[in-house]
Amino acid sequence: MSNTQAQAKSAPKARTAITPTREENFPDWYQNVIKAADLAENAPVRGCMVIKPYGYALWENVQRALDDKIKAEGVQNAYFPLLIPLSFISREADHIEGFAKECAVVTHHRLEKGPNGGLIPAPDSKLEEPFIIRPTSETIIGDSMAKWVQSYRDLPLLLNQWANVMRWEMRTRMFLRTSEFLWQEGHNAFATADEAHQDAIKMLDVYNSLYEDFFAIAGIRGEKTADERFPGADHSYTIEAMMQDGKALQACTSHNLGQHFSKSFNIQYQGVDTQMHHCHTTSWGLSTRSIGGLIMSHADDDGMIMPPKLAPQQIAIIPIVKDDGSAVIEHCKQLAAQLKAKGIRVHLDITDARSSDKMWSAIKKGIPLRVEIGQREMDEGKLSYVRRDLGKDSKAVVTVDEFLGTVQSVLDKMQADMLERSRKFRDDHIFNVNSIEEIRDFYKADGVGFCKIDTGLIDNPDYQAIKKEFGLSSRCLPYEDHGKKVIIGKSY
Amino acid sequence: MSNTQAQAKSAPKARTAITPTREENFPDWYQNVIKAADLAENAPVRGCMVIKPYGYALWENVQRALDDKIKAEGVQNAYFPLLIPLSFISREADHIEGFAKECAVVTHHRLEKGPNGGLIPAPDSKLEEPFIIRPTSETIIGDSMAKWVQSYRDLPLLLNQWANVMRWEMRTRMFLRTSEFLWQEGHNAFATADEAHQDAIKMLDVYNSLYEDFFAIAGIRGEKTADERFPGADHSYTIEAMMQDGKALQACTSHNLGQHFSKSFNIQYQGVDTQMHHCHTTSWGLSTRSIGGLIMSHADDDGMIMPPKLAPQQIAIIPIVKDDGSAVIEHCKQLAAQLKAKGIRVHLDITDARSSDKMWSAIKKGIPLRVEIGQREMDEGKLSYVRRDLGKDSKAVVTVDEFLGTVQSVLDKMQADMLERSRKFRDDHIFNVNSIEEIRDFYKADGVGFCKIDTGLIDNPDYQAIKKEFGLSSRCLPYEDHGKKVIIGKSY
Repeated sequence: MSNTQAQAKSAPKARTAITPTREENFPDWYQNVIKAADLAENAPVRGCMVIKPYGYALWENVQRALDDKIKAEGVQNAYFPLLIPLSFISREADHIEGFAKECAVVTHHRLEKGPNGGLIPAPDSKLEEPFIIRPTSETIIGDSMAKWVQSYRDLPLLLNQWANVMRWEMRTRMFLRTSEFLWQEGHNAFATADEAHQDAIKMLDVYNSLYEDFFAIAGIRGEKTADERFPGADHSYTIEAMMQDGKALQACTSHNLGQHFSKSFNIQYQGVDTQMHHCHTTSWGLSTRSIGGLIMSHADDDGMIMPPKLAPQQIAIIPIVKDDGSAVIEHCKQLAAQLKAKGIRVHLDITDARSSDKMWSAIKKGIPLRVEIGQREMDEGKLSYVRRDLGKDSKAVVTVDEFLGTVQSVLDKMQADMLERSRKFRDDHIFNVNSIEEIRDFYKADGVGFCKIDTGLIDNPDYQAIKKEFGLSSRCLPYEDHGKKVIIGKSY
Repeated sequence: MSNTQAQAKSAPKARTAITPTREENFPDWYQNVIKAADLAENAPVRGCMVIKPYGYALWENVQRALDDKIKAEGVQNAYFPLLIPLSFISREADHIEGFAKECAVVTHHRLEKGPNGGLIPAPDSKLEEPFIIRPTSETIIGDSMAKWVQSYRDLPLLLNQWANVMRWEMRTRMFLRTSEFLWQEGHNAFATADEAHQDAIKMLDVYNSLYEDFFAIAGIRGEKTADERFPGADHSYTIEAMMQDGKALQACTSHNLGQHFSKSFNIQYQGVDTQMHHCHTTSWGLSTRSIGGLIMSHADDDGMIMPPKLAPQQIAIIPIVKDDGSAVIEHCKQLAAQLKAKGIRVHLDITDARSSDKMWSAIKKGIPLRVEIGQREMDEGKLSYVRRDLGKDSKAVVTVDEFLGTVQSVLDKMQADMLERSRKFRDDHIFNVNSIEEIRDFYKADGVGFCKIDTGLIDNPDYQAIKKEFGLSSRCLPYEDHGKKVIIGKSY
């Protein structure tokens, strides 16, 4: 009997690696998955987090995939200042309303020893005009756009920035809502309203392909209702993803800003007609929040499940050895090298931890495939592997050659299956309802998922009351319903 | 006669694309190269810059090259908070001294309308403990290290972060010294003093290979003298690069922090001996400053010269066409596609600008090879190319096939030649001097370069005076002289 079989037999059936389970307490389960997978932890700075190496490697894979897609659209990366002058943020009225309430304000530029010996901001270093740390960069980038755009020949101007931003959040949750987070923010300028409209739609489609192809998440594309729009946008588009508890996560947004910012920041071009015109601009962003969405979409009661395309480590190789296992370890090293040569990200676990601990570590971290090789398997030229999403029932014993020949398709199949499950879960949990009463019935019965209602219903005076009663919000007007329906639900 | 020949004939010999020249005014020349190459510009935020797409693409190439090297050393990327509590920065005495004088202080977390209608920091949002924007992250990362390190099994802990940092600079210059800049900062923790010592040296070597292999810059590796050490370090190592005006640029640093931070932040491990021990830590960083060094090392009076390995665009293809040039343009597109298939970064310039403007744009941007193809060249199956660093005398006319077969080696040769010139320039401008008088004679005669003096000389009371007189500083104790010699010079 191998170590792992012993482990499986001795472990009580109902025990899960994560306590509590999703069923028992979804928010606590979420925090514990992050901890068990070693993705991130709370920082000593209020509302901020430390993204640990395994979590950051995941974000790097997101960045690489998205950056490729963004560049394929002809967008160029650039970098703009972290600090935004108050006078900039003040220029667009809706924008102030949206962001002034939650921003970090820089008021001094030096520290000195205070009366009781501690450091204090030096009074004579007080800034004439304070700065805020960017909560988003429409204003500071708009200022550059105004300089860079002179003629229709300078358009379209397509810019993107990978950056940290701050929004002073009172209730924070790792990845989902933190005071500082990482993101990319795209800022494009066009000559015509139609081009800006098309661009906002197109960039949402770029995000959608990222979510489907890499995150294995099937979301709902749609337009935000007026009350949920970005401060300063004419139209905001969103992908709303459904988490396993039925709540919505706004997975990214793309905004058609019309001429709000081009007028506030004087972004003008001379047209073919020799007249000056204001540009039409868009902005679009995706953040580390997406990692939160990934966890709540795919993880289970044993921990994280990484879609293979984003997994920092796609295969865990665990040598099952007793006493002198040097031959088996050498054999595993060769296998790891062969897999790496195929471009597969491999984690060869040859620490002196117990095999069962290694196995559970791979499970909690959500490594897509777990390969185990003991002396007998080596002697037979075989190995066993398990797909993380299917668990131990998926265990297969194959020859090493067979594994090397099929491993990429096994990973691809897992990626495809995860997307398919996401699609099915979403489709199974959207409910067409026709009245305020039906909405109440659904959420009173702890219904899991979204309600889809007639757009006209949101003008019903009772709608506001029921939103408040259950903590609902309008998530979007799905593309497929052409403005006639609204998706509502609870949300993160 | 082709357009370009006409251009060459009509242009007065002495005219350069950059005014003033290096000879006339090096600092102004520097700013104008940045402008002409479209790398960056001053931001509306005091002391900050906007890194424009072409400059940012250059930084992305630096990042990719360095990130690969860092990961090859087993270091993992992670991300830590932007804001640092005052109590953290206060814990290491030298560290406060070094950074308290120049930092952005966050004191409030909300804005509101002030008495005269403008936005002001909301008085009731004043933070109990202010934060500073990280000038460097030893403290905040030290706090995490203390949690992550328990046992000798957790060591070494090798971390790196790509991030923005702020140091409130009074006199700023794009790339060289800006209030906000981009960098990577590595932070490693070890069980023993020797491992930390070896690591600080090793990471400097990693930087040196980046500078030599990618930047084509031959610097001087050495240790900083005590007065130039990082605040809180036992030993600071540096690469000092010599700019074309003979001044030094500190191109990167690597610090052996000893136990300063492990004692301040309680980074302890339980050893094999079951006793608790403080770790020995290092930190090492390279920033966007390196781009300034690249410009001042290689650019000439016609603009930037990019080393091929870092060049955002390695080849500019300029179709020389009159009237209907569609066949030539189509031909150029095919060539571009063939080069891209070889992994070469190509800029095909098919805007409707004049050919001479396209040529000068490629020159100012420092694109390593400029390819020109007109109707005649196309008919003959040929093209002409010019190496940016050698200028028009290097013009070669070859068949397209020959070009495709040799282009990579042409680029490699240019890369190697640039490094060789850097090495020669450095070696030709280091002068062994033996007395204070000789130092004075050298700099009084506007000597270009570094003086190398006996280490004992820096204890001479006249040394401080002469440093002040000419604005000199001790740059480093070069490795090769084993502590017996000091390099001194003017610096950025």
